[in-house]
Amino acid sequence: MTDRWNAHVRERVPLVHCITNYVTVNDVANALLACGGSPIMADDIGEAADIAAMSSAVVLNIGTLNRRTIASMKAAGMAANQKDIPVVLDPVGAGASALRNEAVAELLCAVRFAVIRGNLSEISYLAGLSSSTRGVDSSAADSKNDAVYAARTVAERFGCTAAITGKVDVVTDGRRLAKIENGVAEMGRITGTGCMLSGVIGAYVGANGDAFMACVAAVASMGLAGEWALAETNGRGTGSLHIGIIDALSRIGDAALAEQGKVRYETFG
Amino acid sequence: MTDRWNAHVRERVPLVHCITNYVTVNDVANALLACGGSPIMADDIGEAADIAAMSSAVVLNIGTLNRRTIASMKAAGMAANQKDIPVVLDPVGAGASALRNEAVAELLCAVRFAVIRGNLSEISYLAGLSSSTRGVDSSAADSKNDAVYAARTVAERFGCTAAITGKVDVVTDGRRLAKIENGVAEMGRITGTGCMLSGVIGAYVGANGDAFMACVAAVASMGLAGEWALAETNGRGTGSLHIGIIDALSRIGDAALAEQGKVRYETFG
Amino acid sequence: MTDRWNAHVRERVPLVHCITNYVTVNDVANALLACGGSPIMADDIGEAADIAAMSSAVVLNIGTLNRRTIASMKAAGMAANQKDIPVVLDPVGAGASALRNEAVAELLCAVRFAVIRGNLSEISYLAGLSSSTRGVDSSAADSKNDAVYAARTVAERFGCTAAITGKVDVVTDGRRLAKIENGVAEMGRITGTGCMLSGVIGAYVGANGDAFMACVAAVASMGLAGEWALAETNGRGTGSLHIGIIDALSRIGDAALAEQGKVRYETFG
Repeated sequence: MTDRWNAHVRERVPLVHCITNYVTVNDVANALLACGGSPIMADDIGEAADIAAMSSAVVLNIGTLNRRTIASMKAAGMAANQKDIPVVLDPVGAGASALRNEAVAELLCAVRFAVIRGNLSEISYLAGLSSSTRGVDSSAADSKNDAVYAARTVAERFGCTAAITGKVDVVTDGRRLAKIENGVAEMGRITGTGCMLSGVIGAYVGANGDAFMACVAAVASMGLAGEWALAETNGRGTGSLHIGIIDALSRIGDAALAEQGKVRYETFG
Repeated sequence: MTDRWNAHVRERVPLVHCITNYVTVNDVANALLACGGSPIMADDIGEAADIAAMSSAVVLNIGTLNRRTIASMKAAGMAANQKDIPVVLDPVGAGASALRNEAVAELLCAVRFAVIRGNLSEISYLAGLSSSTRGVDSSAADSKNDAVYAARTVAERFGCTAAITGKVDVVTDGRRLAKIENGVAEMGRITGTGCMLSGVIGAYVGANGDAFMACVAAVASMGLAGEWALAETNGRGTGSLHIGIIDALSRIGDAALAEQGKVRYETFG
Repeated sequence: MTDRWNAHVRERVPLVHCITNYVTVNDVANALLACGGSPIMADDIGEAADIAAMSSAVVLNIGTLNRRTIASMKAAGMAANQKDIPVVLDPVGAGASALRNEAVAELLCAVRFAVIRGNLSEISYLAGLSSSTRGVDSSAADSKNDAVYAARTVAERFGCTAAITGKVDVVTDGRRLAKIENGVAEMGRITGTGCMLSGVIGAYVGANGDAFMACVAAVASMGLAGEWALAETNGRGTGSLHIGIIDALSRIGDAALAEQGKVRYETFG
């Protein structure tokens, strides 16, 4: 029987509350809608907890964090925890500034995360490995770090599913491990593919019981969307690739994931 | 003779001051430009009133409201009222949180609106009907509410034109009534069609004397844009549909509205 | 030998720190990536200086300024100045409100800019000429002002390269002068072409030593992108034109600039 990770999203239409950066927020909302979820963005402290409590998942993304929204993220995450609503963290640029590092530390103390997703630099920073985050893209210098080790450390330390996206994506909950080889390098030439994926993970985790398996499906779907978009836009450029990714997400279902998903499950040695 | 609602927008290029959410603000600006208006977004309390006073219309959208911008919305709306500049309210998510409800109540006390546009859940909430806003989309549970009754109640209570968009759109100023059947269900799969429409209404109302008739034309143009976009993007997906809607708005004029607009005027029984 | 202004951007991948408006921020990020740069947006006072200090260029855009971000812009600009990192100013809507005028005055006192880019109304205002900024678009009434005179005045007064974009673009550092005739009028029908250009200028200036020459290449590349996009989208509308501009930027290199750039260098009489 085919898995139904995406079908559950489209049937249950999980409301996903995102406190996310203003650079890619429109893409996050459209990616969430495309995969079958329903986005709501509400970042004022006066309603962040209320909205979180009525949602199926909460996504916290620190891409353009500021003091006002850090407090709202904390309130939303804690309200979600109280009702066992899964919370996803996207620690954009963790390691790049003291403000980001302190915000991440504060969120990790106050909130229990179901999933933490980032690039190798960001997850290396969270794992306590030496990292050299430069801006919001993964640093080449960090490629010496082992993604499986970094993800496993974060998964164990914070009791969550950890996902690192890169050439090969790694997802682990500390016990189970998956490597996903979908995606194309050209995705790095548009902003927001990471943020969109974190939103999509919110939808998959909000609609499915198993955060690890839901996260694997979400990661594969985003990689596949990049592949389809690159093929369909045929070299027109990065603007079309951007739109093509949303197009593909709106058409990708479980059958496509089963056929074209390049997921390999492994066990820790 | 063909109506000239859109021609007036393109000839007069109304400056439309929008204090709107950061999720769809780019689409609102591009939709406004596409239909012939000129957008300006200025949300600091230090200039909100100044900018409103030099505009042809003001659009207040509470999609990602926060305490800072609520004060700016109030200042902009009051400054516009003083110079008889029409003000449009988009009460995104009204009914979904105490903060939104209080903000809407405060704006409705302080500002006289020319047009209030929302989905059935939002307008039901404003009409004092039972509503169950879930996030920012209309709740299925509210479909029991009668759109004409809800819109008429809001129009009479607040002395404005009220518009509810849904499968059939309803526009009324309490005396006149129009139903519009343009649009496609797929528009619900992208974020921002409601916000864009509120911006476009600002342009039409800013360039034309009759707010009710201008609003009807604006609502029909957005529905028609969805129809054209769906036909032209041919199932490519929701990313292309999104871009196609802006494309269509930039090409829709009064002739297309006269030929393809599905507007039915009715009288209250 | 062909100039290598764009090649330097693609080889050096300059990190460009943008504190910019939330209307067009996604386009700015994608335009920066398309031309070969790497964007980071960080506007909290707690990290603005830190991020600026690790960047290759800083872009300050006051399109949706507010009191919180004005302070961050100042801190980022001053931190960049200390390390001789070039800073670009986009004085969106200067002349349109007291808040904008005061913010611009404050930034011009505190920060030394490598490049100031705006439309004729904005640069006229900075040059102390009579201007009548209406919203964020150049006012027709200001077309009486001479662009060369306005740009030269700003270049001399603030010791920078000044660029005015319009039908004919003018770039000068007070000593050298270039006029660029790329671009299409249709670019005025989408929001953000000016903001994108300011971001792209940041990338070119961050990757090249000569701010004047880098700025000329950046201005020509944006005009050329508009030409390609208009030709390639073939009248589909302004949504496609918008995406087409990003597409073109991602494909334009020095060879295209050399062949199709309409740059004319002049000397002051």
